[in-house]
Amino acid sequence: MEDADPKPIARKGPIEREDVLAAALKLLGPQRSVSTLSLREVSREAGIAPNSFYRHFRDMDELAVALIGLAGGSLRKVIREARLRVSAGGEVVRPSVEAFMEQLEADEKLLHILLREGTVGSDAFKQAVERELHSFEDELRDDLIRLSQVQWPRAHQPALVAKAITRLVFTMGATAMDQPPQRRREVTDQIVEMVRMIVTGAQALAAGEGKDGD
Amino acid sequence: MEDADPKPIARKGPIEREDVLAAALKLLGPQRSVSTLSLREVSREAGIAPNSFYRHFRDMDELAVALIGLAGGSLRKVIREARLRVSAGGEVVRPSVEAFMEQLEADEKLLHILLREGTVGSDAFKQAVERELHSFEDELRDDLIRLSQVQWPRAHQPALVAKAITRLVFTMGATAMDQPPQRRREVTDQIVEMVRMIVTGAQALAAGEGKDGD
Repeated sequence: MEDADPKPIARKGPIEREDVLAAALKLLGPQRSVSTLSLREVSREAGIAPNSFYRHFRDMDELAVALIGLAGGSLRKVIREARLRVSAGGEVVRPSVEAFMEQLEADEKLLHILLREGTVGSDAFKQAVERELHSFEDELRDDLIRLSQVQWPRAHQPALVAKAITRLVFTMGATAMDQPPQRRREVTDQIVEMVRMIVTGAQALAAGEGKDGD
Repeated sequence: MEDADPKPIARKGPIEREDVLAAALKLLGPQRSVSTLSLREVSREAGIAPNSFYRHFRDMDELAVALIGLAGGSLRKVIREARLRVSAGGEVVRPSVEAFMEQLEADEKLLHILLREGTVGSDAFKQAVERELHSFEDELRDDLIRLSQVQWPRAHQPALVAKAITRLVFTMGATAMDQPPQRRREVTDQIVEMVRMIVTGAQALAAGEGKDGD
């Protein structure tokens, strides 16, 4: 079945790369993954002819990687916001988890892509996802080390603690995305408890090492 | 582009439901998710006409749910094997994680589907994935409670501990799948450490509760 010509959307200037990304985002959802989007569909949603797509992206894969780049920006917002809230009060885990969950709701599906689709796709796509996750983990590791200098006991293997927290928060966040608000709050509480277990366990293991080791 | 007639595969009897599932599995991989498979493709791979597909499944969604059912069988093997190994020796975490990772390699992509695709797809598909995860978590929770009666200190919120371990092991396992064997061993070691952090943390939190609470 062939579709009619794309309907042009009312707009001010020429179509930009950002408009094509926004069109792709609009098509994505709990039942549609990036890998199932077609160039034709995205072009139609953006109001451009399929051939014009190539002025902005080499192929759909390059578009998918660009979406992950945007999602990375959303992640960096989480980190900034969490640091702001933690520095304002004494508690660490809950305000950080809440900053993450609020950004998940606020950023219009960008984090959703990162959380939902990291393990299916081209190598370039998966590498882009891993890059964003690693950068998040590095920031978290630095924060854990900083906390253990001022406020917390030393933790066992901070890089691994950061990785465990990141992966767990992301996978739990992915299951929370499609839930009603009440259920999301429960998931937030669960994540807070889980992160506390990891941090407390890492501190207990570090204390045990100290006793046995030196 | 229309394809030629499906080439019949040499076989003994008529095509069964299992053959269609096997054909779908053969098409899946790190770059192909269930949601991108077409009925035509699966039929061709199974050596049947697309119309014959409907003798076995109502639609592709029913096939995807059936694949998750098979993956659930693979998960139950992990549990049986882990219990066997734990009951043979004193250690708990490492033999259990190893049983999981070995099944991940052995079961020919069944667990891969569960690990990789749980958060994209139809509601029926996602519910099937959640059902298998929950059943795994329930088994793990029962084991944790049993262990805390004989060998381990009591853990804080065993159901939540089971959930944290399951989600973390699954998401870490998903990243390990496409790695070379050497890298997989590293991931196995990381998972073992992460699970120890969670368990140790849950025990430390339970001990703290005891002190403060009663």
